[in-house]
Amino acid sequence: MRRDNNHRKEPFLRHLGDAIRLRRVDLILSQEQLGLRAGFHRTYITDIENGQRNMSLLTALKLSKALRCLLSSQIASAEQALEQENDKRL
Amino acid sequence: MRRDNNHRKEPFLRHLGDAIRLRRVDLILSQEQLGLRAGFHRTYITDIENGQRNMSLLTALKLSKALRCLLSSQIASAEQALEQENDKRL
Repeated sequence: MRRDNNHRKEPFLRHLGDAIRLRRVDLILSQEQLGLRAGFHRTYITDIENGQRNMSLLTALKLSKALRCLLSSQIASAEQALEQENDKRL
Repeated sequence: MRRDNNHRKEPFLRHLGDAIRLRRVDLILSQEQLGLRAGFHRTYITDIENGQRNMSLLTALKLSKALRCLLSSQIASAEQALEQENDKRL
């Protein structure tokens, strides 16, 4: 899975990463524990939480299952955070 | 962008493709017109609607923008359709 630094500042991925981190911390899981649950390496979880990975839909779905939550709700959180950020800029 | 026939029967992608097709038809757009809006080839739209593409999150986001809707709502539709399908199987 390719790490793409061009996505480092992609706001949607950054906000989604925040939502994923928040949920993981709520579940009192380490990045390593979440990685084991989802079948990913710990460093891949780190990259995702930092908004540095443009995951495929099926990968994102797998991760949301490991987090026992809906992918749509995590994406909705990222969309809302993005909207709030854009509102502040206006 | 690689077409992956292994995804042909991936239920989540199939349901998401249905949601995308429904929205496109609501907007009275052809696959070609949607492709032009989103910057994709018509055949790529066909594959997506048939559940044959495991898009990246940023590609899915681009497509939902072209469809003037939220990605989270399209993913929620797919999740609900998947749940209904699983309920029927029980």
